[in-house]
Amino acid sequence: MMSLKIGIITIGEELLAGAVLDTNFNYLARRLREEGYSVSRHQTIPDQEGVMLSEIEDAFHKSDLVLITGGLGPTLDDKTKYILAKIFKKKMRIAEDVKEHLLASYGETLPYLEELATVPIDTTILPNIIGTAPGFMFEAKGKLCIAMPGVPQEMISMFELEVIPQIKLFFNKTAKWHVRNITFCHLSESTIDPYLRELDKLYPEVEKGIYPAYGYVNVQCRVKDEYESRALALLDACLDKIESHFPTHLVSKRGDSLALTIHQMMIHKRKTLALAESCTGGHIAAKLVDIAGASQYFLGSVVCYSNTWKTQILGVHSETLKVQGAVSEEAVKEMLSGLMKLSQADYVLAISGVAGPEGGSEAKPVGTVYWGLGVKGEGVYTGKILAKAGAKRATVIEYAANYMLGILWRKLAYDINIF
Amino acid sequence: MMSLKIGIITIGEELLAGAVLDTNFNYLARRLREEGYSVSRHQTIPDQEGVMLSEIEDAFHKSDLVLITGGLGPTLDDKTKYILAKIFKKKMRIAEDVKEHLLASYGETLPYLEELATVPIDTTILPNIIGTAPGFMFEAKGKLCIAMPGVPQEMISMFELEVIPQIKLFFNKTAKWHVRNITFCHLSESTIDPYLRELDKLYPEVEKGIYPAYGYVNVQCRVKDEYESRALALLDACLDKIESHFPTHLVSKRGDSLALTIHQMMIHKRKTLALAESCTGGHIAAKLVDIAGASQYFLGSVVCYSNTWKTQILGVHSETLKVQGAVSEEAVKEMLSGLMKLSQADYVLAISGVAGPEGGSEAKPVGTVYWGLGVKGEGVYTGKILAKAGAKRATVIEYAANYMLGILWRKLAYDINIF
Repeated sequence: MMSLKIGIITIGEELLAGAVLDTNFNYLARRLREEGYSVSRHQTIPDQEGVMLSEIEDAFHKSDLVLITGGLGPTLDDKTKYILAKIFKKKMRIAEDVKEHLLASYGETLPYLEELATVPIDTTILPNIIGTAPGFMFEAKGKLCIAMPGVPQEMISMFELEVIPQIKLFFNKTAKWHVRNITFCHLSESTIDPYLRELDKLYPEVEKGIYPAYGYVNVQCRVKDEYESRALALLDACLDKIESHFPTHLVSKRGDSLALTIHQMMIHKRKTLALAESCTGGHIAAKLVDIAGASQYFLGSVVCYSNTWKTQILGVHSETLKVQGAVSEEAVKEMLSGLMKLSQADYVLAISGVAGPEGGSEAKPVGTVYWGLGVKGEGVYTGKILAKAGAKRATVIEYAANYMLGILWRKLAYDINIF
Repeated sequence: MMSLKIGIITIGEELLAGAVLDTNFNYLARRLREEGYSVSRHQTIPDQEGVMLSEIEDAFHKSDLVLITGGLGPTLDDKTKYILAKIFKKKMRIAEDVKEHLLASYGETLPYLEELATVPIDTTILPNIIGTAPGFMFEAKGKLCIAMPGVPQEMISMFELEVIPQIKLFFNKTAKWHVRNITFCHLSESTIDPYLRELDKLYPEVEKGIYPAYGYVNVQCRVKDEYESRALALLDACLDKIESHFPTHLVSKRGDSLALTIHQMMIHKRKTLALAESCTGGHIAAKLVDIAGASQYFLGSVVCYSNTWKTQILGVHSETLKVQGAVSEEAVKEMLSGLMKLSQADYVLAISGVAGPEGGSEAKPVGTVYWGLGVKGEGVYTGKILAKAGAKRATVIEYAANYMLGILWRKLAYDINIF
């Protein structure tokens, strides 16, 4: 049983120079896996003709499907279509329908109109509904080559609307990867790993991977099988086993984030949430608001970065800030009670910590974070964590934000108050 | 004059499955470029023995320096050190100094202690001061191979403290890339590109790249030259030319972000800033707080996601929200004046828009954003933008946040009030 070999090539000097982070490869790999395909190779190459010629030929030689992103625009360093035309001995043509569409959408003043509408002959054009440069695809020796723009939004829309259906049409799926992603919170990789090794004995057909992040851990379970029902039954059994072992840490068996899981639970329970963020500086709010429909439960966040705001908006006593400090259990308690009064929310969260790199002391080193959770009509809970030593500012903030969301999730899902 | 060929290999099934975004490659590429080296190839490979063997051998064949990240831990899918030992015919040994260090730091209970301290013989150990698994490097046929952990924090610390000095020692630099990054705001790629093409006639030795993002654009100018002073003089001349053409849009000639540039200007001017964020939901605050020392000027942000908070904390009239809507010039004006009263900040920003995908109307489609800037003792300025059609929620938010920062920067730097 042979599986489809997929190669992804992301093109751009900006990627190899580290000027831009390659999110396209990640997106394509994830989506192809979700659709049951798996990527076997990925290369990042510069927009230099010689390298492009040899690496694209090489990828075509080693893969059944080659997906290329980048280098389709009309500017200086966009060469992809010409290189593909050279490799596959195709002349160029001006696609009149693309030209008309561009004229209708952008008018005569669009720069490089004809250049944008130029594609290699004998290719199927993939419309770009977000930007200007079209993609295209063609078959050669039973293999498929697909070129898409590098701008993430444009690539994503083209991939979803055009490319995935074309891939499904062109290749008959054989053994397919079936995948389940699990999200854990308040649990470390070193606790999960030994258990997954144990599980290997029970479920040897299930491949398992652990992907730790700051404040949460993802686990992926995957089975390659041509029969979907068999694969899914096996995955379900394995996931149930994992859930029964770590029930109060397993946030989602669909790989949903803490924020999305909380979003759904809050709306389902018809409760409201308000935040007071000091050290996380808006990051918790941002995670919640990134999900459409957050206004159904999320009232807002007081990003009280200065002591003045803590006192003035939340009513934290100046005395508390002076004696115990802004990073203290007492300050967090007063932030909570001020926020409860101000917002009347069903749930309130408050957080204050030393994000670093400056501001640490022996008693409160960088990474020290006090958190607080208030529940209307019930009371408040507080605690202290230490993001691990050596952590950078960005990772302390990210860890603290996710840890705080974990507190809320464990309260909502299992009524856990002690951490 | 031969330049050093550098190959980077990032290892992990999680990368090819799209479960984890590869930030390590981006970091290494950027830092090597900053140090004057350039990366010629990058591959992402799975943790499968056969593929690892052939792709690492291939990379070693085609490069002078191979940097590998990932697969050094003690868990299930960590195979890198064994594969390298196999390729280069090295036995394994337990490094006693690593073992002692781990015992001293983590105690007897650390799982997989001996496995962690196991490395191929005849390699130089690269200490891991953040995590547990050490890296290592070795020479073969005048080439250098370096293996680092995949956890970003650990990789970064090892790269900075150990790897970069070793690379500099091992290879004599020849022609070096000299690089300048420019940040533009409120300017589109299609305006910048024709001018850069013009500049190619004046400065043919300077390579130029344009990297548009949401709400800002980065331009990189680079010169490859063995004489640093000659390269820098050329770059400076070219950058001055660009600056004189787009003075009020050029945020930084060092590639600094809008947030960092504002951070420095606010502290320098000893001014304070407060925000009222509706549609950006904390993202602007998060960008500012990500920079250490933000407390020197940043008071806080009222993330007033609900209408209640707009009314209650900022004093926006219910009538305004009912008649004009939360996404309106009037609402933003009232947010500004409430925020000025509340915070007494020197500069205040307010923003409200339709992030989508729901909530758009014919009059105010998704992407409609009203912004406001208030200056103490001077007055308020407001305006409306439309993030381009087809934009996703995340990109509307990102565009709006960066556009708003652009407004503030142009006010601070050039006293521009009309946009």
